[in-house]
Amino acid sequence: MMTYFNPVELIRKKRNGGRLTDAEMEFLVAGYTQGDIPDYQFSSLLMAIYFKGMDPGETASLTRAMTGSGETLDLSDIRKPKVDKHSTGGVGDKVSLVLAPIIACCGICVPMISGRGLGHTGGTLDKLGSISGFRTDLTKRQFIHQLKKIGVALIGQTEKIAPADRKIYALRDVTATVDSIPLICASIMSKKLAEGIDGLVLDVKFGSGAFMKDYGSAMILARALVQTGKAAGIKVKAVLTDMNNPLGEYVGNSLEVMETIETLKGHGPADLIELTLVLGEEMLKLAKIKGGRRLLLEKVASGDALDKFRDIIRYQGGDTRIIDDFPHLTMARKAAMIRARSNGFVHAIDNYGIGIALIRLGGGRSRKEDKIDPACGFKINKKIGDRVKKDDVLIEIYSDNKTKATVVSEFLRSAFVIKTKPCRHKTLIREVIF
Amino acid sequence: MMTYFNPVELIRKKRNGGRLTDAEMEFLVAGYTQGDIPDYQFSSLLMAIYFKGMDPGETASLTRAMTGSGETLDLSDIRKPKVDKHSTGGVGDKVSLVLAPIIACCGICVPMISGRGLGHTGGTLDKLGSISGFRTDLTKRQFIHQLKKIGVALIGQTEKIAPADRKIYALRDVTATVDSIPLICASIMSKKLAEGIDGLVLDVKFGSGAFMKDYGSAMILARALVQTGKAAGIKVKAVLTDMNNPLGEYVGNSLEVMETIETLKGHGPADLIELTLVLGEEMLKLAKIKGGRRLLLEKVASGDALDKFRDIIRYQGGDTRIIDDFPHLTMARKAAMIRARSNGFVHAIDNYGIGIALIRLGGGRSRKEDKIDPACGFKINKKIGDRVKKDDVLIEIYSDNKTKATVVSEFLRSAFVIKTKPCRHKTLIREVIF
Repeated sequence: MMTYFNPVELIRKKRNGGRLTDAEMEFLVAGYTQGDIPDYQFSSLLMAIYFKGMDPGETASLTRAMTGSGETLDLSDIRKPKVDKHSTGGVGDKVSLVLAPIIACCGICVPMISGRGLGHTGGTLDKLGSISGFRTDLTKRQFIHQLKKIGVALIGQTEKIAPADRKIYALRDVTATVDSIPLICASIMSKKLAEGIDGLVLDVKFGSGAFMKDYGSAMILARALVQTGKAAGIKVKAVLTDMNNPLGEYVGNSLEVMETIETLKGHGPADLIELTLVLGEEMLKLAKIKGGRRLLLEKVASGDALDKFRDIIRYQGGDTRIIDDFPHLTMARKAAMIRARSNGFVHAIDNYGIGIALIRLGGGRSRKEDKIDPACGFKINKKIGDRVKKDDVLIEIYSDNKTKATVVSEFLRSAFVIKTKPCRHKTLIREVIF
Repeated sequence: MMTYFNPVELIRKKRNGGRLTDAEMEFLVAGYTQGDIPDYQFSSLLMAIYFKGMDPGETASLTRAMTGSGETLDLSDIRKPKVDKHSTGGVGDKVSLVLAPIIACCGICVPMISGRGLGHTGGTLDKLGSISGFRTDLTKRQFIHQLKKIGVALIGQTEKIAPADRKIYALRDVTATVDSIPLICASIMSKKLAEGIDGLVLDVKFGSGAFMKDYGSAMILARALVQTGKAAGIKVKAVLTDMNNPLGEYVGNSLEVMETIETLKGHGPADLIELTLVLGEEMLKLAKIKGGRRLLLEKVASGDALDKFRDIIRYQGGDTRIIDDFPHLTMARKAAMIRARSNGFVHAIDNYGIGIALIRLGGGRSRKEDKIDPACGFKINKKIGDRVKKDDVLIEIYSDNKTKATVVSEFLRSAFVIKTKPCRHKTLIREVIF
């Protein structure tokens, strides 16, 4: 059924700034996924795309072809609106864990397929992995069954979902073609489209702890993501949020699960609550469900959201005792503290450095095959704009490995920039893009 | 001894417009040639080079690394100046065959390593291949022995000369990265530097029968070639010549050998003689040998150049009877003629089309493994600017295959553009670049 094209001609067309048609894109992606088009041709195509870009239509057709390379979920017999949230990745970002149960309590189905930690950013799957027994490798049948029963499930990308994305991402990683907006777009959206959702809220982060360091490039990515999603037929909104501070107070897998539970109990830190509410409001709007922020807060206050989180853990085989009894979460001991050396105000935090420090402590991966120590992490006591006094604790390091803790505290000693003159707090939510 | 670099970092550096150092280039080329760097990384590097280019120093270091990937000739115990000529390729270009023996008669050593036909252009090796018994696969020892004995030898690129070039060229061919000036430069010069020459005259062609269709891009290529050669320590001149007309009267392998012999006997067509003399004069200048055009014409008039051509054939195992007795060259019968349909002047010739027509007739290759029919070809009776009368013969087709001849005469019917108003003849030699 598929038309045959000459791959070299298609590479040349893109190289010369031409536009690839739906059929050509389909041919390239299917050919590459099936092994008919070799790596060396696809990598030169990727580099040509890096330089010449792709228009929204091309990006959408690449996305569709990548989604179509594998299995997609058909949730049409679930009558509820189906809306997901996706973050481009940050440090201390546990919003998915807090938000998914709240939203599921509002009559929205949340079929959330998440990733592992990537580079300096944490991953939802790794956080869930710190709950003893929790399984993220449900079968398609189990996943759909759980969605029908409790309206929410959090799983990992399977072999069968967008295999083209997995193969293309691995190639981009070794050919210096990762940082291309249309390729990033297609990679994110191809997996989300496989979820069978009608709406998606994107949390696009900028700043030292995000992939996009500056506001401008995050804005370009956000616009491209929204366009791609719309072209593929789903409702999409993007929220641009500041990642110059770690989100919440804790960084590290089990520490973030503990913070999630505290937040669902009504004791969360202000920035985490605010971001959860803003993203949740957008999800409600996409689902055309009234109530907004008040509805979301009610679901927390009533304990419904916490019960939903307990349901998720139970359905996915995890130890539900962690909800009421933190010792059932393996958390490391406090091993070191970093203190301010002078009075003043926090002007900057090396948030990327904190993400890297977690990897050095053993709480993240530098290579795909690395094992994670879920117990270690940090408590962040000060944020940008906060006043500090000499000897105030800036960061607490949790680790059961003294050597690593010492190395990491050396590494983090200069992560906070403190100056005498006052400094404004960062605005967390910067813009909502339709 | 070699420094190790991270290939992805080097690709990213070039992609971001950075400059690769000598050591980095050496690492990339050696790593690729030895198979340590995979095709998919090298092809994305090539595409990055396509977009970001390379400065003369980088091009020279790539060239050196490619030459250094294999064997180079050491001709230092030959006391004569060693000068070669290289053409970027054209239709009917048999200058090497005519020029090499003339120059060898002037006390210059000519270690000529040539290629096969490429795309629509003919190759010196294929022309020599039409001489029964002629061997172009001499060993290094045989090649040097012949240079010492008669001062000239014409062979093909061996496995051992610049293997990096062969591997890189094959990859460029399938990844749409052929038409990059610095890559073309490095490919040409890496092989020529392996010849152990002190001087090189380049015939850089532009026009419908050349790879560079316009004068401007041929000029850019010529300047880059000269710079690269100089940076590598040899004397180089480039001559820019017009390839809108086929060169000489004949196109096709044995027909061009016949025309070579006629030219060495003093009966050559004006354009072929002129180009041979201009390129020969530049070779004499590089070798600091006086006499110029007069000396070259003397070597033809005395019969010395023809004797030298006979020596070449004898040394390389070919049938020398062809010199005096054309029937020993296998030439096809005249099979068809294309005639003018009206009176007027030739305004344009589809010279690229004539090259392609030779492939269709069987006299060139569309794939590397194709066998060539050396006997077929064309006689070109009119050039751009010539006056023609209705029914004048424009092209004669020589072929022993009626079907192919018919197909090709259909194909060539529109190769000549004839208009009633007069048209100027083309200037063959446009510029000499130092």
